[in-house]
Amino acid sequence: MLDAPSPAPPPRLGSLTGRARVLHADESTLADQLPGADVLLVWDFLSHAVRRAWPGEGPRPAWVHTASAGVDHLMCPELADSDAVVTNARGVFDEPIAEYVAALVLAMAKDLPRTLDLQRERTWLHRESRRITGTRACVVGSGPIGRAIARTLKALGIAPALVGRAPRTGVHGPEDLNRLLARADWVVCAAPLTDDTRGMFDVRRFGVMQPSAHFINVGRGQLVVEDDLAAALSKRWIAGAALDVFEREPLPADSPLWTAPGLIVSPHMSGDTVGWRDELGAQFVTLYGQWEEGRPLANVVDKKRGYVPGH
Amino acid sequence: MLDAPSPAPPPRLGSLTGRARVLHADESTLADQLPGADVLLVWDFLSHAVRRAWPGEGPRPAWVHTASAGVDHLMCPELADSDAVVTNARGVFDEPIAEYVAALVLAMAKDLPRTLDLQRERTWLHRESRRITGTRACVVGSGPIGRAIARTLKALGIAPALVGRAPRTGVHGPEDLNRLLARADWVVCAAPLTDDTRGMFDVRRFGVMQPSAHFINVGRGQLVVEDDLAAALSKRWIAGAALDVFEREPLPADSPLWTAPGLIVSPHMSGDTVGWRDELGAQFVTLYGQWEEGRPLANVVDKKRGYVPGH
Repeated sequence: MLDAPSPAPPPRLGSLTGRARVLHADESTLADQLPGADVLLVWDFLSHAVRRAWPGEGPRPAWVHTASAGVDHLMCPELADSDAVVTNARGVFDEPIAEYVAALVLAMAKDLPRTLDLQRERTWLHRESRRITGTRACVVGSGPIGRAIARTLKALGIAPALVGRAPRTGVHGPEDLNRLLARADWVVCAAPLTDDTRGMFDVRRFGVMQPSAHFINVGRGQLVVEDDLAAALSKRWIAGAALDVFEREPLPADSPLWTAPGLIVSPHMSGDTVGWRDELGAQFVTLYGQWEEGRPLANVVDKKRGYVPGH
Repeated sequence: MLDAPSPAPPPRLGSLTGRARVLHADESTLADQLPGADVLLVWDFLSHAVRRAWPGEGPRPAWVHTASAGVDHLMCPELADSDAVVTNARGVFDEPIAEYVAALVLAMAKDLPRTLDLQRERTWLHRESRRITGTRACVVGSGPIGRAIARTLKALGIAPALVGRAPRTGVHGPEDLNRLLARADWVVCAAPLTDDTRGMFDVRRFGVMQPSAHFINVGRGQLVVEDDLAAALSKRWIAGAALDVFEREPLPADSPLWTAPGLIVSPHMSGDTVGWRDELGAQFVTLYGQWEEGRPLANVVDKKRGYVPGH
């Protein structure tokens, strides 16, 4: 079993002692170690090492697990076409990300960034802020993360609409997207990154939103055309935005996004609450038990679609 | 009828045209105008003009309404001992303040102020943040504002305990306060300012809180001994705090609170959402209708206690 690549602290896999031989690989050693592994645990969701090493020579692991919700960083045609089973960390991030989105929505409604700016200037400036009760959200992405976001916003009195790949009960299809964007106070992107969704938030999407709308991305950076968002903010097409994910991570120090007007930049941390690494490790150990016993694995990703289908 | 004192824009009382003669007074004219008024509407909740003018010579209005939840700024022994009926803006601020408290709780849990600091420095620094689900809040003040805060926090998965002047169903009495403070992750002060509550959050209260606890005051500044809070933050007795109200408002530019470690300072705005002035005006007009018809007024304050009793 191979745990790769690991610049971050490796997970606690102590309970696999005697059950698996655990090797650690990094970007430089993964290609050599891949042929000898039955199972590959992908721990660093920022690395593209798997996508680079997988097409090489020799046998390949039969099972690949990624300690992340998205699989975009490891997927390549050779892996997608192979017999390897891919699983993800479905479930671990749902509620933490929903809380994070609620924090951003409330901070924007209550003008908290400006309050903190004024505090730094020792300036007392009373303003009116916005109610969130009675406002509308459009949550794009109808997987467990999007659904958790919708539940949490609803508990706060916000009316959420979910948009997914296809319409089903409680979920709108893509044909409703523009209509929902045009009436949303909050647009939240929690979609998986696939060929269908790449760059979906572009000048046309920002163009249909209300001038009072706020946009939040907790999915993947490539879902958003960053230049289009920066332009929409500069031109006041929308009132504000928050990005937790970016085309390039870490966001380069010279990126204009750091200072885009009305934009909150956070370092891909929306789902990472105290104990998250332990939880990811424990989830993998549970799946490993299913694997050992030859039972069907949970959280199996549809490799063509790029996410766990259903529900 | 007298609307006083009015540095802020006066309320929309157009529907009283033909029903009342409306005069406006400010700090300098109130004492002279008071004897001629049947009704006094107190619009500026920061002014102490009423407390100063009321003890003077001549007849006094039979009804005083304040467009605020607290009555501490207008109450004086002469008013308390008089036959004048005092009413307040009970109800207008409950839900807005509850949303504001939720915004502060989530911002603190998700380390948002630090995220904004790092953004200004163009620094990408991933951190773990805290879940709010499963944490505990102690809400001090069991009136409609405190109860709205408890409801909203509960909707977010936080377990709230309410503390009031006396124990009743769903409300703890003061004898439980220290025990509840010692186990709370979030301590929220939404109590009225009375002789019993003045300075209640002092070195002894901060001393029993957990080092991981956060304190929020949306009541009145005088409920907190500000020096004790600043010391508790400096010594890391508690992890953070947010004050929306202060002993002196506006907070003086040289106050050490502006830069106290882990403290969020906001300018008494927690309940003031877009449209709040219209809503306060409309509430007064409704009460005026009751007054005209000789019906019992709603929102009558117990002048000795300093708030609307019951419920």
